[in-house]
Amino acid sequence: MDELCKKPMSGRSKFEAHFERKCARLAGHEGKCHEYPYLKQLAKVAPRVANKIKRDSTKTTGAAWKSDDAGPNRIDRWAMLLPDKLLSDEFGIHMDQLKPSVYAKLRDKAASYDDCMEVAKALTILAYNMPDVPEPDKQTKGYFQTIGLPLGEFKTTCIICKDVLNFDLFEGAQRGKANIETAHANPRLHEADNVGFAHRECNIAQGDKSLDEFYDWMSQILDRTKNKT
Amino acid sequence: MDELCKKPMSGRSKFEAHFERKCARLAGHEGKCHEYPYLKQLAKVAPRVANKIKRDSTKTTGAAWKSDDAGPNRIDRWAMLLPDKLLSDEFGIHMDQLKPSVYAKLRDKAASYDDCMEVAKALTILAYNMPDVPEPDKQTKGYFQTIGLPLGEFKTTCIICKDVLNFDLFEGAQRGKANIETAHANPRLHEADNVGFAHRECNIAQGDKSLDEFYDWMSQILDRTKNKT
Repeated sequence: MDELCKKPMSGRSKFEAHFERKCARLAGHEGKCHEYPYLKQLAKVAPRVANKIKRDSTKTTGAAWKSDDAGPNRIDRWAMLLPDKLLSDEFGIHMDQLKPSVYAKLRDKAASYDDCMEVAKALTILAYNMPDVPEPDKQTKGYFQTIGLPLGEFKTTCIICKDVLNFDLFEGAQRGKANIETAHANPRLHEADNVGFAHRECNIAQGDKSLDEFYDWMSQILDRTKNKT
Repeated sequence: MDELCKKPMSGRSKFEAHFERKCARLAGHEGKCHEYPYLKQLAKVAPRVANKIKRDSTKTTGAAWKSDDAGPNRIDRWAMLLPDKLLSDEFGIHMDQLKPSVYAKLRDKAASYDDCMEVAKALTILAYNMPDVPEPDKQTKGYFQTIGLPLGEFKTTCIICKDVLNFDLFEGAQRGKANIETAHANPRLHEADNVGFAHRECNIAQGDKSLDEFYDWMSQILDRTKNKT
């Protein structure tokens, strides 16, 4: 990926000393460096979607973190690559005080900075390939063209149920939750080709299972219900 | 059901003035009246299960009630048959201050006292028909025999996935939650023949759908995944 500038950038992350943020603008660009240049248009026309893409790409998430003993909420996924002792000494994140199940879940969310940035790009492309998305502007279109991932090559479907996902579902919030969630084919792998958008209900139903496990689970249930009737 | 005593009983419910609790012991019994005579053994040998059966039969529940603006948590289902004004005047439950979606959910949980008691019996039978349940004592066995619902006539399966449910799943708590939950074939109908036990993961996956809707939903997903590969 030599198309990108990749100059180190200072961000607002407290983990900067250990991980270098990089400019993702095209090599030789004019003006300031930017970590998410391809999200500029969405940040203007659909800021909630742009923020969701940034957040889901880079942060540990999950309702399970909301309780008191659940550990640090929404931290950079790459911080979960750092050893317990360093997290405790430098950042006051005391991994050893968490319940083993919470500890394991947090460590499962670990992903490198580069993988997170690839996920952010993949999610942006998926958003732009939804039927009723705003038309991408010239800069955005050109950006993805240049990095070899042109927009509009496919229609975005829910990675779980494979039905078409409409962009306006992002806005149909119910009890504060979007009806589209970021989902993983294998829940323990935060990489671009393993990530996608899904209906909230599909994501909840998939739970901790991989997609293959989920489809097998459903097949078995349907087989049993057929045998019973 | 003339087999039962049915004498009015005083309970601890604040809604007593509007709903009469009844003795469920066999007609002509000696000694004190009892609302759940068929749960006496489980209350001793598996108190968590007995309490769960009572609670799930009679109370509104659901994670959705846990947030601040969610309205009254865990109240008697029959109270949800009372009009808004009475609930407000007599019990300080201000239904009109709830969000419409929360209001609707609470009202959906409404069920008559008699239906709740039938559900409690049905769940007790289901628990006793699990493979590794403690052997029912003479009183319990005799009770269900007398009311025409003898124990041991079938093997209890998850009402969603139709796989056998083991009694010890009640105790396998994870993050404070039992791995068996009370589930409804039609989520909006709290009646004995619509209620059963289910694996927690199955119940979560079913969500708001009826079982028929859930199976259709799964069939469609599997059809689409087959078409894609």
